[in-house]
Amino acid sequence: MQTGVTVIRAHAGSHFLHKVPAAAMVINGFGKSVGLMQLDELGVLETPIALTNTFSVPVVAQAQIKQALALHPEIGRTWPTVNPLVFECNDGYLNDIQTLAVRASDYTQAHDIASEQFGQGSVGAGRGMSCFELKGGIGSASRRVEIGKRSFTVGALVLANFGKRAQLTLNGQALASRKQEGADDPEKGSIIMILATDAPLEARQLRRLAARASVGLARTGSNFGHGSGDIALAFSTAYTYPQAPTAEMPAIAMVHEQHLDGLFQAVAESVEQSIVSALWWAESVLGRDGHRRLALREAYPQLG
Amino acid sequence: MQTGVTVIRAHAGSHFLHKVPAAAMVINGFGKSVGLMQLDELGVLETPIALTNTFSVPVVAQAQIKQALALHPEIGRTWPTVNPLVFECNDGYLNDIQTLAVRASDYTQAHDIASEQFGQGSVGAGRGMSCFELKGGIGSASRRVEIGKRSFTVGALVLANFGKRAQLTLNGQALASRKQEGADDPEKGSIIMILATDAPLEARQLRRLAARASVGLARTGSNFGHGSGDIALAFSTAYTYPQAPTAEMPAIAMVHEQHLDGLFQAVAESVEQSIVSALWWAESVLGRDGHRRLALREAYPQLG
Amino acid sequence: MQTGVTVIRAHAGSHFLHKVPAAAMVINGFGKSVGLMQLDELGVLETPIALTNTFSVPVVAQAQIKQALALHPEIGRTWPTVNPLVFECNDGYLNDIQTLAVRASDYTQAHDIASEQFGQGSVGAGRGMSCFELKGGIGSASRRVEIGKRSFTVGALVLANFGKRAQLTLNGQALASRKQEGADDPEKGSIIMILATDAPLEARQLRRLAARASVGLARTGSNFGHGSGDIALAFSTAYTYPQAPTAEMPAIAMVHEQHLDGLFQAVAESVEQSIVSALWWAESVLGRDGHRRLALREAYPQLG
Amino acid sequence: MQTGVTVIRAHAGSHFLHKVPAAAMVINGFGKSVGLMQLDELGVLETPIALTNTFSVPVVAQAQIKQALALHPEIGRTWPTVNPLVFECNDGYLNDIQTLAVRASDYTQAHDIASEQFGQGSVGAGRGMSCFELKGGIGSASRRVEIGKRSFTVGALVLANFGKRAQLTLNGQALASRKQEGADDPEKGSIIMILATDAPLEARQLRRLAARASVGLARTGSNFGHGSGDIALAFSTAYTYPQAPTAEMPAIAMVHEQHLDGLFQAVAESVEQSIVSALWWAESVLGRDGHRRLALREAYPQLG
Repeated sequence: MQTGVTVIRAHAGSHFLHKVPAAAMVINGFGKSVGLMQLDELGVLETPIALTNTFSVPVVAQAQIKQALALHPEIGRTWPTVNPLVFECNDGYLNDIQTLAVRASDYTQAHDIASEQFGQGSVGAGRGMSCFELKGGIGSASRRVEIGKRSFTVGALVLANFGKRAQLTLNGQALASRKQEGADDPEKGSIIMILATDAPLEARQLRRLAARASVGLARTGSNFGHGSGDIALAFSTAYTYPQAPTAEMPAIAMVHEQHLDGLFQAVAESVEQSIVSALWWAESVLGRDGHRRLALREAYPQLG
Repeated sequence: MQTGVTVIRAHAGSHFLHKVPAAAMVINGFGKSVGLMQLDELGVLETPIALTNTFSVPVVAQAQIKQALALHPEIGRTWPTVNPLVFECNDGYLNDIQTLAVRASDYTQAHDIASEQFGQGSVGAGRGMSCFELKGGIGSASRRVEIGKRSFTVGALVLANFGKRAQLTLNGQALASRKQEGADDPEKGSIIMILATDAPLEARQLRRLAARASVGLARTGSNFGHGSGDIALAFSTAYTYPQAPTAEMPAIAMVHEQHLDGLFQAVAESVEQSIVSALWWAESVLGRDGHRRLALREAYPQLG
Repeated sequence: MQTGVTVIRAHAGSHFLHKVPAAAMVINGFGKSVGLMQLDELGVLETPIALTNTFSVPVVAQAQIKQALALHPEIGRTWPTVNPLVFECNDGYLNDIQTLAVRASDYTQAHDIASEQFGQGSVGAGRGMSCFELKGGIGSASRRVEIGKRSFTVGALVLANFGKRAQLTLNGQALASRKQEGADDPEKGSIIMILATDAPLEARQLRRLAARASVGLARTGSNFGHGSGDIALAFSTAYTYPQAPTAEMPAIAMVHEQHLDGLFQAVAESVEQSIVSALWWAESVLGRDGHRRLALREAYPQLG
Repeated sequence: MQTGVTVIRAHAGSHFLHKVPAAAMVINGFGKSVGLMQLDELGVLETPIALTNTFSVPVVAQAQIKQALALHPEIGRTWPTVNPLVFECNDGYLNDIQTLAVRASDYTQAHDIASEQFGQGSVGAGRGMSCFELKGGIGSASRRVEIGKRSFTVGALVLANFGKRAQLTLNGQALASRKQEGADDPEKGSIIMILATDAPLEARQLRRLAARASVGLARTGSNFGHGSGDIALAFSTAYTYPQAPTAEMPAIAMVHEQHLDGLFQAVAESVEQSIVSALWWAESVLGRDGHRRLALREAYPQLG
């Protein structure tokens, strides 16, 4: 089973009770992620963020529903329903996606082991992902940004599963010839880019951050291919919104709009670096029908 | 089990091979429908349209994936993946939504019996739905529109599950006092409005049609409540797009933009009439925990 | 000259220094308003709101630029440029719009006399406007909303210039036959709906309020005609954002999302009432080429 | 007067009578362009495209209105009004933007001399523009794309006025140190990217093309700065829509969606190349208050 699930938790508590300000940017909407409509309307996420393969979105969404119900039996009865949030890429080159191998327990296990320390490359949802026809998967990077006398962090985690070999660009330089065999084949990959920051931002500002994920993506060689679901989501850990309308709303002083440029640059750089990191850490995987993806360092030993 | 599934097929063939021009309008995005992101990007639907309850979206989405795979084993291997399209309302007042009672077979059965003749009211996905605190569900209506010397049809089918009693408005007249008990309780309903037309329209024009569904909805008394997922989708049956890039694209002369007003009015009227029709045909249902929704004619016998 | 300018000031000070949280909803984009792109990106307005006829947008936008420059010579030099915000309807039935009769002084005069007391009907930008083929123009109405123990106001001001006689609906009842002469002629009108509230709301929430303006509009008979620029803007007077990035941002506790329903209803009702009010107060006007629009009470004396 | 106007004509005839399929993508909406709302709704442009400085948008928009009225006196009377389409960047570093120096005649002159041969760099609207704190302005480039047995062209023309020196990236390589003086100052520039193609595409597809302009922009070093109005527009020259509803609509076979990848790559490459071209051809300009922008080759003689 060359597939899996990755879970990102914005905080340690119930995301339903303590909703997290968030916004998404659909860079290219050839994708099957669920949960973005309500997130766009309300500006919050209310479950952890799950990443998996395309055909496993339903089973993971259902696992999120059951998890929320187990925690809060009022959901769907005296309380409103819960909005699952599942992103996907198609790992069908290495994984036999038609087997629908992912189980609800894969979600709960990934959820429970989520921690500040985590592996990169061919792990979790990244297990079967390809990137530039090499082995891709999970990558992460972060930047610190000074605003006035305060210091904030922007962190990116990507599920990288896009690109043709001829496009691969590291530090601005193409690694392969543009005349690769199959260079004209359509791209069938995708990339999910999750951004977290401790800067206090409202959903509209987070949407502006998410839009800069495309900068980092473009610099690795992507043209946002027709068949690639390229989606970014940004959330802030600086505060939460209470579920109960009787609870007090937080009074937050957001970052002044003119101070966003540093955060924008941090997003661009951390996304680009996350993609490189996914390639760097991913180990070669042999998958269905003898398909193999080489690790970056196998394909380009001079990088080592 | 006071819940179910309703399926709308745009044509008798494979929607994946013969994609249907379509567009959606999110009037209020407090909802968990899946499939709208890709539909928005590509302007087509590639599965039948499924309606069900909120927590059954995953099982129905997975049933759509399996159905497409059974029909086209190339999907997710040599072909791209398929985009499920499932809309939902929360029928939790009458249905114990936490039991996740809907099965994949409910989808396939609803799919297979889809026909031009169909019941309204408390049927299919409408079984457990409430509307204005009365029994709601499936309603349908249509209008004919003359454009030049040609005649086109606009048909609406709604899954009506919204509104407080104090809002109910028939033919412009409020039926109940604005001082109803519980009138200040938050609304937790939703409405899905599906529009079909044989007029040749492109996705951008279909989106304009979908936007007029809100006119009919507003006239029944809705204010597009905070907790109501109010979503419209319009599709055209005038032509299809081929899946295979080697196939020829259809050369279609769309309706001239200045001729859309008649279609807009037809959308507004057929949506309003569909909601009334759902109320009219729905029979009283006794559901979980002794909850009962009266039929419109029981609550207002003078209408009979 | 059967045309003019109306100006709405969100507060008495410099809107550039003290930016006002705001958001717009384009219900039908057949219109030439300016300023919405930046408002959508930044969630604030930074000039007063101007209303005028379609071809006078440029002269009024330039008057706004000059006004801001006179107040703040730093604009466009050491400070960023200013974003004019001008909405329009086409008053070409009564006004000879090709004469471009509006002058910059019409804007400054309307700006300077803006007050809490103002006329309705055929005044300012409403001078030449038609509504349901009757005399339209400026109308206003408001509602109070209780949220918890606090009370807020929602006020609407519309520039009403839309609709065919056959559509006119007052209190849910059509006034004219649907078989009016010329009922099939395309609509060439528009409506601008400005909403103000003292409830503390962020731009995303204000956008949700603006979306409910369409409810009130639909109830008067509009189908959001193809050729009608139907646009709503909502702003909050509860706080402002400072221009200078060195200034402190306000720490605001927004209204809890689940409390918005009362505000939504207030928007729907005050927009519907504003349209009626525009019709009620507008006096008959004789304009270009002998065109005349009757006042509502002339056409339907039984209403008086 | 270090400022001006550039005009792009999609064809030699009346754009109002023969409307051009078009779509825009707002990458960052800190800008004052006019005309995008109606373009977004209707999917066509109906005037030539004008580029100028920020505060000259009104005078150029009015020149477009007068030009359309002179050509078609029916506009605003028996026909609908016309939608001006003017894009802008802030050339205030070199140009004293507060003088509002641009005249209507600058628009008409630029319109009349528009031809397939044109200058680049410090010409037209590009006269006062800065890019990466060097002299920017007008740049253009194109690519050919084979789709099946047919060959199409994608051409880009940019008005480049963005970026800090520390960001400047040519062929993937930074030219300057990231430690430039003033590197933390906010960016106040913008870029307008106009794309033309002879491939038959509908507005939705053109919007997808416009979205790829951001790829080329990102590769030159931009992070889509907060204060930068980064906007792309794409139009097709393959067909036009008639103004008159009595005229026949064209029956067009659009390019198959799966064939768009080649066009996407062409957009990315031609935008990147256009920006480089603007820098390459721009000559040093001495403007207001002794401000000077060096030409790229003056600043980096090694490039020559």
